[in-house]
Amino acid sequence: MRRHPRKRTPGFLRYLPSAVVLAAMGLLVSQVLSQQSGGGQAGVEAVARPLPAIWWLAPLGSWLALAMAYFFYKSVMRESEGSAEMQSIAAAVREGAYAYIRQQYKVAAMVFIVIAALLAVMAFGLHVQHALVPLGFLTGGFVSGLSGFIGLKTATQASARTAQGAKTGLNRGLTVAFRAGAVMGLTVVGLGLLLISVWFYFLHQIWGYVWAGALGWEPMTLEQITVVMLCFGMGASTQALFARVGGGIFTKAADVGADLVGKVEAGIPEDDPRNPATVADNVGDNVGDVAGMGADLFESYCASILAASALGVAAVFGTAESAAAETTRLNMLLAPLVLAGLGIAASVLGVFVVRTREDANMKTLMAALNRGIFLASALVVPATALVIYAFDLPWSLFGSVVAGLLCGVIIGKATEWYTSSSFKPTRWLADQSLTGAGTVIIGGLATGMISTWIPVLSVSAAMIVAFGLPGGFHDISMGLYGISIAAVGMLSTLGITLATDAYGPIADNAGGNAEMTHQPPEVRKRTDALDALGNTTAATGKGFAIGSAALTALALLAACVEEFRVGMHREAAAAYVCTAGSESKVQSLGFGKFAQYVSPEAATRQQQMMATVAYIQAPGKAENTVAREAPAGVTRGVFKEDGKDVLYLVPVAAGELAKKKLPDVGAHQAGMLDFMRHYGVTPMNPNFLVGVFGGMLLVFVFCALTMKAVGRAAGRMIEEVRRQFRTIPGIMEGTGKPDYARCVAIATQGAQRAMVFPSLLSIIAPVGVGLLLDVGGVLGLLVGGLTGGFVVAVFMANAGGAWDNAKKYIEEGHHGGKRSEPHKAAVVGDTVGDPFKDTSGPSLNILIKLMSMVSVVFAGLIVKFGPIVGSWLHIGWDHLAK
Amino acid sequence: MRRHPRKRTPGFLRYLPSAVVLAAMGLLVSQVLSQQSGGGQAGVEAVARPLPAIWWLAPLGSWLALAMAYFFYKSVMRESEGSAEMQSIAAAVREGAYAYIRQQYKVAAMVFIVIAALLAVMAFGLHVQHALVPLGFLTGGFVSGLSGFIGLKTATQASARTAQGAKTGLNRGLTVAFRAGAVMGLTVVGLGLLLISVWFYFLHQIWGYVWAGALGWEPMTLEQITVVMLCFGMGASTQALFARVGGGIFTKAADVGADLVGKVEAGIPEDDPRNPATVADNVGDNVGDVAGMGADLFESYCASILAASALGVAAVFGTAESAAAETTRLNMLLAPLVLAGLGIAASVLGVFVVRTREDANMKTLMAALNRGIFLASALVVPATALVIYAFDLPWSLFGSVVAGLLCGVIIGKATEWYTSSSFKPTRWLADQSLTGAGTVIIGGLATGMISTWIPVLSVSAAMIVAFGLPGGFHDISMGLYGISIAAVGMLSTLGITLATDAYGPIADNAGGNAEMTHQPPEVRKRTDALDALGNTTAATGKGFAIGSAALTALALLAACVEEFRVGMHREAAAAYVCTAGSESKVQSLGFGKFAQYVSPEAATRQQQMMATVAYIQAPGKAENTVAREAPAGVTRGVFKEDGKDVLYLVPVAAGELAKKKLPDVGAHQAGMLDFMRHYGVTPMNPNFLVGVFGGMLLVFVFCALTMKAVGRAAGRMIEEVRRQFRTIPGIMEGTGKPDYARCVAIATQGAQRAMVFPSLLSIIAPVGVGLLLDVGGVLGLLVGGLTGGFVVAVFMANAGGAWDNAKKYIEEGHHGGKRSEPHKAAVVGDTVGDPFKDTSGPSLNILIKLMSMVSVVFAGLIVKFGPIVGSWLHIGWDHLAK
Repeated sequence: MRRHPRKRTPGFLRYLPSAVVLAAMGLLVSQVLSQQSGGGQAGVEAVARPLPAIWWLAPLGSWLALAMAYFFYKSVMRESEGSAEMQSIAAAVREGAYAYIRQQYKVAAMVFIVIAALLAVMAFGLHVQHALVPLGFLTGGFVSGLSGFIGLKTATQASARTAQGAKTGLNRGLTVAFRAGAVMGLTVVGLGLLLISVWFYFLHQIWGYVWAGALGWEPMTLEQITVVMLCFGMGASTQALFARVGGGIFTKAADVGADLVGKVEAGIPEDDPRNPATVADNVGDNVGDVAGMGADLFESYCASILAASALGVAAVFGTAESAAAETTRLNMLLAPLVLAGLGIAASVLGVFVVRTREDANMKTLMAALNRGIFLASALVVPATALVIYAFDLPWSLFGSVVAGLLCGVIIGKATEWYTSSSFKPTRWLADQSLTGAGTVIIGGLATGMISTWIPVLSVSAAMIVAFGLPGGFHDISMGLYGISIAAVGMLSTLGITLATDAYGPIADNAGGNAEMTHQPPEVRKRTDALDALGNTTAATGKGFAIGSAALTALALLAACVEEFRVGMHREAAAAYVCTAGSESKVQSLGFGKFAQYVSPEAATRQQQMMATVAYIQAPGKAENTVAREAPAGVTRGVFKEDGKDVLYLVPVAAGELAKKKLPDVGAHQAGMLDFMRHYGVTPMNPNFLVGVFGGMLLVFVFCALTMKAVGRAAGRMIEEVRRQFRTIPGIMEGTGKPDYARCVAIATQGAQRAMVFPSLLSIIAPVGVGLLLDVGGVLGLLVGGLTGGFVVAVFMANAGGAWDNAKKYIEEGHHGGKRSEPHKAAVVGDTVGDPFKDTSGPSLNILIKLMSMVSVVFAGLIVKFGPIVGSWLHIGWDHLAK
Repeated sequence: MRRHPRKRTPGFLRYLPSAVVLAAMGLLVSQVLSQQSGGGQAGVEAVARPLPAIWWLAPLGSWLALAMAYFFYKSVMRESEGSAEMQSIAAAVREGAYAYIRQQYKVAAMVFIVIAALLAVMAFGLHVQHALVPLGFLTGGFVSGLSGFIGLKTATQASARTAQGAKTGLNRGLTVAFRAGAVMGLTVVGLGLLLISVWFYFLHQIWGYVWAGALGWEPMTLEQITVVMLCFGMGASTQALFARVGGGIFTKAADVGADLVGKVEAGIPEDDPRNPATVADNVGDNVGDVAGMGADLFESYCASILAASALGVAAVFGTAESAAAETTRLNMLLAPLVLAGLGIAASVLGVFVVRTREDANMKTLMAALNRGIFLASALVVPATALVIYAFDLPWSLFGSVVAGLLCGVIIGKATEWYTSSSFKPTRWLADQSLTGAGTVIIGGLATGMISTWIPVLSVSAAMIVAFGLPGGFHDISMGLYGISIAAVGMLSTLGITLATDAYGPIADNAGGNAEMTHQPPEVRKRTDALDALGNTTAATGKGFAIGSAALTALALLAACVEEFRVGMHREAAAAYVCTAGSESKVQSLGFGKFAQYVSPEAATRQQQMMATVAYIQAPGKAENTVAREAPAGVTRGVFKEDGKDVLYLVPVAAGELAKKKLPDVGAHQAGMLDFMRHYGVTPMNPNFLVGVFGGMLLVFVFCALTMKAVGRAAGRMIEEVRRQFRTIPGIMEGTGKPDYARCVAIATQGAQRAMVFPSLLSIIAPVGVGLLLDVGGVLGLLVGGLTGGFVVAVFMANAGGAWDNAKKYIEEGHHGGKRSEPHKAAVVGDTVGDPFKDTSGPSLNILIKLMSMVSVVFAGLIVKFGPIVGSWLHIGWDHLAK
């Protein structure tokens, strides 16, 4: 376990440029091919599907990000890693991180195989899902894992180099650490946007034009494309959950173990090389704060773009079937991609302006980072204007994007106010330590709870503004597009905000490395300054992660409804085949869904599919629904014929007239509110309320499980450290070498064991609730999980941050300083805060997104079987309810 | 301050029998009168409004409860209060409790005057509320205060008598304490049901028949009666909030102050008379656990009955206007009242079987209490059958009541499992103390969080069963009636469950009295046994209070929608006058409300009011809504005429045909889902989602405020106790007398100051959200507050209970016993748990009910002005949204 991985890791990134070039070539070749086939071959129904030139800004942006990531990676690697001792410590940490991540990917791979198999059954067996979804799920997970690995690799390579850089000067240290962070940030956005671009290009151009032309296939509609792509996000979600939960448990188990036995029992300082858990502690920073945070935001980034695309297409869907509508649809689909591409350019520019003078203090360091973020955010504003202009979108969307950007800034500032010891709340919390641990805990809990008000109100305001501006409260679909584009706007600068986040643990590790290798005081002072800055950026980064997760989850909630709509179409299309021959009838598919027959000769298959209408009983008024050409004795419009539910309508010939006369609404014409009513998505449906309760419950159970897991893993770590102190001779004198790897292995095991159950819970819950309580129940679950999860996540992150900084404030010499009674009380607060802010709280970000994602992916299953199960149990929502 | 209140309190209860007799006489006299006037005088429109004979079981039940309360009170007062020293201590506690309650009622009175004035403005100025509502609000508050006072008085009289009884034997002690508790329980249910019965009789018979007949008034419809009565509940809610929040802050400030300085700093035992905060601590038990709990459950009790009555009438409302329907309506209104009356009889029988053998241990004591509760619950089952049979209701309601009863039992058992040291979770928590305070806190938080699953799932199951059985998921109104009747069933045995709750603090105080007066060990052993039992009943009582609050709040949520419906009718009726003369028109009232004109000659005023229809645009489909006889260029069915929104319909003459053709639904015929759609009560409306966020936020802010208030008040108490120890000579030797009253005054001030802001917040929030975000926002707020509040309340109560009992478990000698390091860690947990379980947690019960109540009362205001404000701000929900 002592081998230096430097010798055998061939630099994974070495392959990255080739991969990028290959992908780019693939895109170009297929572009050429598509033009060819469009011009010459005259395929069966192959109509050219042109893309506006500006679309190329999306893949270009992703290539720019990856190229810059490669450039920064190279520039970091060119730095010296310092003395042999420094290299050896860094290698141990790197080795530990690789050991952990290998194990995590192994567990994740098994789960991925199982889920992909399930998705394959759904796609090919039950026909409730598109055939490409299982593949998309795997690519999403793979790319998320890849970007996490690249970030982790860079971070672990950078820590010793940052320490070495700090020997030269502060600016050098900052540059190395920040550029390593930028590798992470740019890799995440680059790979994310590349994945989306490649998939879109494949589905729209190659599958939908080249192949469709050559093989006479049915090209996918834009709606189908976005909906399939949205499902890919689940791969990223699942990977993110493992990274966040596993990483969170690992890092805190190691931290608590190292602190309790090392600092408290043995009385040796933090990051002392004699402490066997030290390396695990440093590994934890990397796997939790780098890989975990990266996977979290990779998912937010991809999901917000995908949701916006899907909602953009859906917003135009209801109106008319014209070429102009099709163009608008495509524009609204592409706008989020292009905005993300321009956001990358803004981020890259932002990264370049981050530098500082040699005599920099905390304030100027912070100003340097803020300058970069501010520049990037400011550049996104004109970029938005450009996108709106180029795609001819309503200008009100500009307001939505600004609302998203502002929301992110406000949440960040509020987080700083409530958790930084420069401000009143944390100082007040430090005062509470004077009366003991009990009051510190109560004070921290109260501070965390009250601190939720600004984030909740600003997300609320952003939501209303982003919805109201484009939709004006009369076009719901357009309003939802506004919310999703606000999330894209907020996340467009992720390249640089994530860079500042990832910078934190790198600086922290650099400090650890300097400490463990006994660097001279001025070096350690510099690394301390870098580290302190990292703590502040970590807090605001957490706020950003939570805020963006909330907006993304909101967009996913809306996208989920789109998936339910598509699920209904799929069923209606399937039923069309069954009912052929019964021309004057509308066939009940059971459980409130009806298919209308269209003569097969009259139209192409595509048109038949579109004409096949799933009927929704819209007004639910008994008088209206019995006004049918039906035998006497019919109740509520549905009666039995040959033992099957059948609903008579006037003959198909009557067409539009019949539709006017009857209040039924076809799924294709149904508005959002028709769906809400059909599925009983209101608090008057107990299934919806039970769903909300369930979402809330899941948040609490999830927190409890992760907190307990940290406790258990930390307990085993404590035993191991104690054992090593006891059994390894000369360990305290520095002559015996502690077994770092064993501690890493213990934290790894603890994390792997504990992460599976909560992860499965958040995947199983939406499916289970959906099958049991139908669409109403699932949407309730998402509402409860989203609102409860957001509030609890903010509460936990801020309480944890405030405790942490109150302790540091006392350590600076206030209230008696280190080892005083108030300090002991504050340490209790910090111990409680650790799993709050680094395990349970951040994991909730993923929980709320993953639940929505799972609902999106399993929508077809839920639409098909939910009503059936509900009917068996006699708790199915009656769409004709009065 | 040392005077013995015994000398001057004339026994408030002395007046009670006379009051009861007066009320009974009043009812009988008016009954006779009504029969006279019905038979002879032939008033203008006075049609006799007969009540079925079985209705009298409701007032009879209330009289029985009050008579038995009086009987038990007398039997308690006949007991000796013991030695002069015991009497003096008891008098000090009583004096302190009176001083506190006087102050609380003063503050409450001021708030009541302000709110009543506001309600009067709403009723007489804005015409958005019935004229009797302000009066009803005051009576509700007054009777709640009265029952709290009676309970408090009895409890403070009983503590010394229980201690004295324990001198004779355990059975005697149990009997005294339990009977005193029964006074509280029976007074609450007796006064509650009496208030409801008297108001109903007045509105239905005297106002609606005698006065209407004599003065030619319009009698109130059953719908109006229930809706006005429902508003009375707000008085009880407001009173309960002050009692719970104020009492909760008082009791914990005193407790923490007494413990920290007395036990920890001065090293004197608990309940030592040398500790100046001891009396305040004992006072706190009475004002928090007796008066606070009583007011809480008084409110649940009344609100559940009132909500069930209102929903019962509403359930029949939509169907037809026949004599049979009117009878069903009356039956469904009366059923909850009569069920409550029979429940009282069951409770009284239950109280009588509570007695135990002399050699009783904890287990047999518990069995004695359980026997009483079980008997009462078992008796409610046949009583329900009787009520259903007598009122000819659907038998499926039987299942709803049983679901409610079972839900209460399961929550109680789950609470016991998670908080009693006899079971695994609390023992595991005690183990956590071995690794320090940090792990105890994390463990307790995790235990509290995970413990929410059984209560959430059982409330969810009860909700679905209670809804699904009578309504079968196709009749929403009937289903909601089922949920509300389940709440009534759960609370019908409140007479005895509250008796066991109130027993706890009485036994606790008896133990304090015995300790302070240095009784011999065997007496203190007996009071300790009684006290230990009280701790267990307190835990299950808390579970019961939370569970019943959740079901009641659910019923109130549904009732709230009824109030919105009535609000629309009121507006339509007002608009009727304005539009007279425009016969072929439907007049827009603006903001999606429309009134249809009916010829004044064609019908009586009553009929005209009924025929005046507020139109709701049901399906929201653009094609449907423009299919009007309207000028060209109309968008979305509404166009301007003389600067006003006007919607044309086909002439009135077309009548029913027009209604069939057009998908608009009149408010009178509109189903629940029409309302939900009209107001956009779905997660696709951002106003609803913001409401849910807001409800959640309110829960967290409310908790933070109350926890901080406890901290502040405890801080002042600590200073005061330290000051007395310092300045009063001979206090530690027992020669100088501590100033108990000063500590009581400090706790009182702290409680009064701190309770006003959170209380006002929970009143202002629903009104503010309603005016800003309309009905959708308010219902979101209620959903968020209800679900979040319930989960957080269970979490806090169980975490607090588990910490408390883990500490006691260690004090029994485990893990090193008292004064060991684990014990110190457990004490930190207990300190955090105190405000959790006794202040913030229980206050949430009221928060969730009060918010619903406020929404009920202010529904008229919100319906009228909400859309106007929303329109100004351009965030008003568009009822034609697509």
